[in-house]
This record gives sequence, structure tokens and C-alpha cells, in this order.
Amino acid sequence: MIHVIKIGGGIIEDQNALTQFLASFAKVEGKKILIHGGGRMATTLAKKLGIESKMVDGRRITDDATLEVVTMVYGGLANKTIVAGLQALGLNALGLTGADGNLIQAHKRTDWEQDFGWVGDVDHVNSSLIISLLNQGLVPVIAPLSHDGKGHILNTNADTIASEVAKALAKLEETQLILGFELDGVMKNPKDASTVIASINTEDFENYKADGTISDGMIPKLENAFKAIQSGVKAVRICNALKVGDSTSGTLIQ
Amino acid sequence: MIHVIKIGGGIIEDQNALTQFLASFAKVEGKKILIHGGGRMATTLAKKLGIESKMVDGRRITDDATLEVVTMVYGGLANKTIVAGLQALGLNALGLTGADGNLIQAHKRTDWEQDFGWVGDVDHVNSSLIISLLNQGLVPVIAPLSHDGKGHILNTNADTIASEVAKALAKLEETQLILGFELDGVMKNPKDASTVIASINTEDFENYKADGTISDGMIPKLENAFKAIQSGVKAVRICNALKVGDSTSGTLIQ
Repeated sequence: MIHVIKIGGGIIEDQNALTQFLASFAKVEGKKILIHGGGRMATTLAKKLGIESKMVDGRRITDDATLEVVTMVYGGLANKTIVAGLQALGLNALGLTGADGNLIQAHKRTDWEQDFGWVGDVDHVNSSLIISLLNQGLVPVIAPLSHDGKGHILNTNADTIASEVAKALAKLEETQLILGFELDGVMKNPKDASTVIASINTEDFENYKADGTISDGMIPKLENAFKAIQSGVKAVRICNALKVGDSTSGTLIQ
Repeated sequence: MIHVIKIGGGIIEDQNALTQFLASFAKVEGKKILIHGGGRMATTLAKKLGIESKMVDGRRITDDATLEVVTMVYGGLANKTIVAGLQALGLNALGLTGADGNLIQAHKRTDWEQDFGWVGDVDHVNSSLIISLLNQGLVPVIAPLSHDGKGHILNTNADTIASEVAKALAKLEETQLILGFELDGVMKNPKDASTVIASINTEDFENYKADGTISDGMIPKLENAFKAIQSGVKAVRICNALKVGDSTSGTLIQ
């Protein structure tokens, strides 16, 4: 079983959260891959450099200057902070962007009404490279950057990269996708930790949507989870990023 | 034969030079590894962020803020610009820092009178990882960063990384070290391209030093080259970074 684990970038900026996350990630048994974000760090650096962060529907418009920022932050600072931290725990982490080893080929998004700049939509994941690295005992740590094969790095959403990587690996080995976030799972009441829903299937999902238990941002998150499962991913777990190593935490989607 | 090729970071900032270098690097036959600098880019970013670049004897004092800058620039922007550029030429480049795959273990420099901050002196190169990547048809692109195994990235001179990598590989396979720089080689008259010395052995070196043909910064460069050869590296070539792919260019030290 391969575990593809995704976390947001906020954790990396918070030394306590990072320490907790790394310890929990180290507990995940078997083959594992980490995919991380870094949006908040990118916004902080952009601000320091006087570059305006333009967001449309939660997506970052990536002009030339912003591409440099995300390449530095995602591929450099965020990725290497995690890699060095995992190395200190005895995990042989190896950081990658989508350009490295031609890991994630993408094309520049041009088919949307809004011009997002240097943003890439994924065409192909080099799953055999990931399998080869895993078989060498390495732990791939992937930054949310792809490339177009023409010399350009492209900015790509970390959730998208996680699900594309999981779907590609699922064709070769049994794969579970773990989506770490700030809550303890899909909750009936987000303020009450005891209301985490242990598991959800498609029928449950329709019912929860109908009665309003699941709403807003959780809907696309779960829709993407079900899409991954329809594409061959064995299960998706949505849980607190600091508890990814606890296989019973959060909500199991299957 | 493995070719370990080192270039300064200035090339990456100059689009014309970068294009020329990448095309020349692509011509190098057989297994190859690229090690790049990025000091000038780091100084530019540090300046934009209001971080003072403190240099002592040409070495960068690496405080916390500067470590973040070099991690972003060396491990992120410089490394990924090269990797994406090589991918566009059909070379399956894969970028690494010393933390990735535990490639370069180092310890924080504490035994010098001057406190250099987060600067690492190399203890061990994971040459078997490099050989494994080369045997998979990959082209490792190494940023001048090491790690201490305790969770810290360390800033390490690119020339040092290049010679340590070459020496470690030389124990396993025949290895040549190619040091690209701004001149056409070791020259009798740096202003006259026709005065490049085609080859230098230790006896020649002593003579050239005695008569003043070789002086200043070229002396430590050649001393390091001879040290690499004494440690098993087959030959060292010092040449124009834009001509690394021409096996007859520059000065051969053997």
C-alpha cells in the first residue's frame, strides 16, 4: 500500500505544528509520499518583495514575478525545510518539483476565461520514477509545481497534484490518499471534535448534502475524493494534518 | 566516465548565457552531473529583502535570514530554472540539495575563528544515490547546500561540493571534474584567448608559479584541482562555462 499524503503550507511556518506533523508523518507505515502547499509563505515573501498577490476564486494569478516567488518558496524553502526535518527523523526524504525527473508534465492553462498566468493543468505523472524512488527506500516530498517540457515551471494546486499522483500510482500499486487539513475530519459540527464522521460512501454523501450536514468548501473536497476513488484510488482519508500517522483518525471516504 | 561539471550562478541570471551553457552541457557525452552556484542571485534577493550580505574573504556569512535566502535561491529558483531548461532539451534532469536523499552530510563550521553561521563543511557524499540516479538515465543537478542530519540546511561552497562529489564518485567509477568559469582556461595572458595553456601537470604548475604566469585566484583553483587528482579524480578541466561540451576546450590538469 502506498500512502500519498497532502498537507497545506501553513504547517511549515509554525515550528510547533511542523514538529508535530513530521513526527506523525514518520509513523505512517509502508511506502509514503508527501505533497505540500506553501501559499501562505508565498504571499508573505511576495509582500516583502512588493509583489501583489492576486487571487481569483482562491487561485493565485501567477505572473513572471510571482512564478519566481513560488519557485523559491515551494521548490526551495518549504520543500527543503520538510526534507531536512524528515532526514533528522531518519526518513530518507528526497524533494522534487514536477520538473525534476519529468515528474509532472503539464500545460499552461489557456482554456479558461481568466488568464491565470504561469499556472499548469496536469497532463502526465511519471509514476514509474516515484515507484523507483520508493523501492530505493526514499520518501518523495513533492512541491506544488509542474513543468511544460518547454523550459517553464508552472504553478499547480497541491490538492490537484496529490490526487493526480495518487491516481497515477493506483494503476501500479494499491494507493491511499490522505488529505491533511486544519480540522479533525468531516464533522457534523466543526466546533465539536466528537462529531467527526468516521466514514462516508457516495450514498452518505448525497444524504449529508441534502440535509445540509456537509456544505461549502467541504463539498468540492469530497467530490475530488470520490473522483480519486472512481479512478482507482483505494480510499481517501480526510483528517487533521497533525494526525496523518494515526490510521484511525479523520473521515474515511470509500 | 562520469563528468562532474561545475558552473557559477551568474550564468542563470543571463538568459543568453544560460541558453548557450545548457546547449553546451547537453553535448557532454556519457553520465553527467551539474553543480551550480547562485551567489549573485542570493545577493540580489537579499538586497530586495533588506538583508545585508556579509562576506569575509569571499565567503558568505549565513545568518538565519540569509539561510532562508540561499535555500530559496539555490535550492529553488536557480536549481529549478536549470532543471526545467535541461528538460526542454530532452535531458532528464533531477534537482537536489545535499539534504535530498541524504546526498551531502556536513557539520556546521565551528572550528574557524570567524563565525560563518549556517555554513557546512562536508563529511560524506552519498555517491551510491548519484550512481543509482545516473543508471536510471537521470542527470543530477546539485545546488550548493548540504545538511547536518539534525534538521538544518547548511550553505556550502559550490566548488567544494563539486570536488567532494567528484572525489566520492572516483572511488566507484572513472570521473572527470570540469570547472566552468568566465575565462577560456588557464591563460598566459587573460586578455588573449590564444594564450590558453592546453595542459598542466604538477611540474608545469610549479614552474608557472615561479615565473608568475599563474598567480592570485588561479593558484587555489589549481591547487584544488591537483588535490582532486591526488584523491583519484582522473582529470580536471578548467574551461569557459559556455564551452563545457567541447572536450578540447580549456586547460586539462592531470
